[in-house]
Amino acid sequence: MKSHTEYLTFTVPKRMDFVNITPQVREVVKRSGVREGLCLVNAMHITASVFINDDESGLHEDYKQWLEKLAPFDPSPTAYRHNRTGEDNGDAHHKRQIMGREVVVAVTEGKLDFGPWEQIFYGEFDGRRPKRVLVKVIGE
Amino acid sequence: MKSHTEYLTFTVPKRMDFVNITPQVREVVKRSGVREGLCLVNAMHITASVFINDDESGLHEDYKQWLEKLAPFDPSPTAYRHNRTGEDNGDAHHKRQIMGREVVVAVTEGKLDFGPWEQIFYGEFDGRRPKRVLVKVIGE
Amino acid sequence: MKSHTEYLTFTVPKRMDFVNITPQVREVVKRSGVREGLCLVNAMHITASVFINDDESGLHEDYKQWLEKLAPFDPSPTAYRHNRTGEDNGDAHHKRQIMGREVVVAVTEGKLDFGPWEQIFYGEFDGRRPKRVLVKVIGE
Repeated sequence: MKSHTEYLTFTVPKRMDFVNITPQVREVVKRSGVREGLCLVNAMHITASVFINDDESGLHEDYKQWLEKLAPFDPSPTAYRHNRTGEDNGDAHHKRQIMGREVVVAVTEGKLDFGPWEQIFYGEFDGRRPKRVLVKVIGE
Repeated sequence: MKSHTEYLTFTVPKRMDFVNITPQVREVVKRSGVREGLCLVNAMHITASVFINDDESGLHEDYKQWLEKLAPFDPSPTAYRHNRTGEDNGDAHHKRQIMGREVVVAVTEGKLDFGPWEQIFYGEFDGRRPKRVLVKVIGE
Repeated sequence: MKSHTEYLTFTVPKRMDFVNITPQVREVVKRSGVREGLCLVNAMHITASVFINDDESGLHEDYKQWLEKLAPFDPSPTAYRHNRTGEDNGDAHHKRQIMGREVVVAVTEGKLDFGPWEQIFYGEFDGRRPKRVLVKVIGE
């Protein structure tokens, strides 16, 4: 069994935004030399997500508005008890639970085994500082 | 290490519905010959989910009503910017994020290692056309 | 390829609560002898979650309040069709979908490959009885 691990770092200028990281993950899979196996991609921070969906800017705006409705940004300690710790990112911990921490993708014949529109995104909910994504490929 | 990949196709007659795909996944695991490993099952389309829960029709109706409340179907381009592209399925991309893209299931002694009520469902949110699910088993 | 499977049992005294199970998972990884691979941790019950987030009690209270808003506890069969079966836990099946069934964690150099604040939680939404969590480690 082969295994290969890399860490990607993203500094997203906005508080909330989505970055298509498919090209970087594809490169990691290539470097792994794995032909058949699984590829785990996960946010290493708990106010960020990795998810798979469409690379369509209108949809991304829809997601942002929807997440803001489900868990609005509000730095006050009455809106989120978490903000009593001095943090202002209580909302980000909630948004991340909706969008998920990780994806596991099949690697088949040396490639990410994707449907026609699948793209991997890093979802940032408390940006403006460097944060890491782990990519691990195992297989043969 | 062994690996085995199959693609299942589902054409769901309704826009939104859930299909118990446990029997099909079980057959793939059997054909894989894997005794100890992991089984990935994921929707290959971004308006569909694979998830694990109860095979109870009342619960499924509850889920549909709840998802409709969280992300209502509305083909208008004002409800979802995504629909400005000519699509009418903005809601489906949101519902899928709640229910998830994939499950990873342990394979132990040649079988899906499940709790008493766990069943795998294909969740369709924009049906009436053939869509694919990937099943990949790796292990020994 | 090595593989190692263990089952953890939790009896949570409250209907809804979160338990940090990172120490137990860490021990399973150690016992597996796997240095490079993947670790799957999943709830074996469909009214419970396994998720990764912060070990901060204020945040956990925020999550509970938020989940209660998204899918309120209500034993009546009009609130949830699922409760027509004699169950009173329709809400718990919904809360679990928000928080997720499982996590897959990279094992690197024999350890859970975590970011600075990542901790694994068992999320109970219908407690007061023993329920199981599966931990499976595969790799080399």
